Amino acid sequence: MRVGKQTFVYEKPPEVASHASVVGPKEGGGPLADYFDVILDDDLLGMKSWELAESEMLRRCALLAMKEGGIPEGSAQAFFTGDLNDQIIASGFAGRALELPFVGLYGACSTFVEGLVLAAGLIAGGFLENALCAASSHFCTAERQFRLPLEMGTQRTPSAQWTATAAGCALLRRSDAKGRIRVTAGTLGKIVDYEIKDANHMGAAMAPAVESTIRAHLSDTGRTAGDFDLIVTGDLGWIGREILLELFSRSGKPIPPEKLVDCGASLYYKEQDPHAGGSGCGCVASVSCGWIMKRMEEGEFRRVLLTGSGAMMSPTSSLQAESIPSIAYAASLEVI
Amino acid sequence: MRVGKQTFVYEKPPEVASHASVVGPKEGGGPLADYFDVILDDDLLGMKSWELAESEMLRRCALLAMKEGGIPEGSAQAFFTGDLNDQIIASGFAGRALELPFVGLYGACSTFVEGLVLAAGLIAGGFLENALCAASSHFCTAERQFRLPLEMGTQRTPSAQWTATAAGCALLRRSDAKGRIRVTAGTLGKIVDYEIKDANHMGAAMAPAVESTIRAHLSDTGRTAGDFDLIVTGDLGWIGREILLELFSRSGKPIPPEKLVDCGASLYYKEQDPHAGGSGCGCVASVSCGWIMKRMEEGEFRRVLLTGSGAMMSPTSSLQAESIPSIAYAASLEVI
Repeated sequence: MRVGKQTFVYEKPPEVASHASVVGPKEGGGPLADYFDVILDDDLLGMKSWELAESEMLRRCALLAMKEGGIPEGSAQAFFTGDLNDQIIASGFAGRALELPFVGLYGACSTFVEGLVLAAGLIAGGFLENALCAASSHFCTAERQFRLPLEMGTQRTPSAQWTATAAGCALLRRSDAKGRIRVTAGTLGKIVDYEIKDANHMGAAMAPAVESTIRAHLSDTGRTAGDFDLIVTGDLGWIGREILLELFSRSGKPIPPEKLVDCGASLYYKEQDPHAGGSGCGCVASVSCGWIMKRMEEGEFRRVLLTGSGAMMSPTSSLQAESIPSIAYAASLEVI
Repeated sequence: MRVGKQTFVYEKPPEVASHASVVGPKEGGGPLADYFDVILDDDLLGMKSWELAESEMLRRCALLAMKEGGIPEGSAQAFFTGDLNDQIIASGFAGRALELPFVGLYGACSTFVEGLVLAAGLIAGGFLENALCAASSHFCTAERQFRLPLEMGTQRTPSAQWTATAAGCALLRRSDAKGRIRVTAGTLGKIVDYEIKDANHMGAAMAPAVESTIRAHLSDTGRTAGDFDLIVTGDLGWIGREILLELFSRSGKPIPPEKLVDCGASLYYKEQDPHAGGSGCGCVASVSCGWIMKRMEEGEFRRVLLTGSGAMMSPTSSLQAESIPSIAYAASLEVI
């Protein structure tokens, strides 16, 4: 059913039957390394282009989620996915290889959570037994596309985030089992634009969208931040996380800093020089499917509000000096 | 409920409460002119870039659908949309202006039908009362992005399709009224790739995906082509339409040519020199929301199988000599 203005509550909440994460060497050298399923030695994966490498990483991640979920390869009923590449080619090529019913999404770095919200609705509504929700990103495809060719060796600005080379995939499934991670509610965001125009300052562009969606989720469901063990954002980075904390403080309903975990601010050590932290569709997807869901299964967290945020600009809109519209989606994950 | 392998049947099928179409001057000079709601005099709409013009066209189309549907501006519960621009910026900017809960999709020219299939599921599942399903394209944004700058005045190949400057938007709504157009079933496609590598020959790239999805829809629902008054494809153009007819003939289950209408092959007169016909997310969206739905309301057709197909390549994948993966979605529209 729908509650409030933007939120779905799933009366029969689907379980996270399995989750898989595949990350690159840099991500595998960070503080969350122990929680990722696969750490690649070579971020080209033996392919002839970064784009094909990203797609192959996504494909392997989806295969792993199906294997871990105990369903035969190719038997997932839908593949909700997207990535940062123009026309989501990493997803398109992975979808071609996997031969699954395909749902192409674009929500920039919010895509993984957008997929969870939609897929959970279609499962709870009786239209699917299960669905894969996935997303990927790759540092080299993103730099080539959004910024400058890597070969130029340009210096990055301190506020720039580092696009994670990573993929995450969760298998959602209808089930009556007990003690499972379930997607219990989902919120569709509205596009918010605070007129940030700097594509190297995306945490600032996205923080207001995250605030808007978290506020909508809490208001629609009648919950408070105190009802959650953790509020997760993906991916504001260190700067955007501070901005979000300040936005909540100014609103009179502060979120305790120790409760707010940003995937981009958690993926790397500062010594790895990721500047403002991680970003990319694959960052929130891999940290969710790695660290968060594994900690939930270990009993560390029982209720997590997972948000994904995306900066909806393109290289063309940046060149045209347009500001950066941003979107955020939220999904409530609970062990029930 | 789910039937077969790829199809949703909506037990409480949402109605098409309203539909709106806005097209450019060339499209307004074609054979379907009488069926479009708005024909623009100027395809720049007074904006400073083609990209902003496309976004403004989409915004106006969504506003018109809300007005025609009798709901206050801004009260639609979700805006399912996408376009051909990198990172769907036309949709992102329109979403920012409309301030509606936003669902960003990417299915290339299939996006409008992808949105119908998903939104109908979430409405039938009880998560939304209504939803806008929209898509746009613009000749000038698409040429700049996928092919060559218009200023070069390059000659187009005969197999190239002409990206329509057009937007279409349907308002789906839960209702018990009689005699309404309803979305009764929807099919998610699988990505199909017949190794076409020519971005100026997209009808050939997409026809196999359309065949795959129509075949899945008919097989899953136990229907035949004879159960429909019309089978609509968007957008194969004249060449792709011939290929699709041949694919069905070779399969032993031919579709009568007079029953197969392609939006891209219907939007322009050949004398308008669109080469292989129209294409673009806005082509199938505007022809569906214009000609098809108006003819259904006039009693001309009672049951239409609407398919949208998308070529999931990018300029980068074309430069990398990759083939063109394609996707198609199908929605069954019935007056009930």
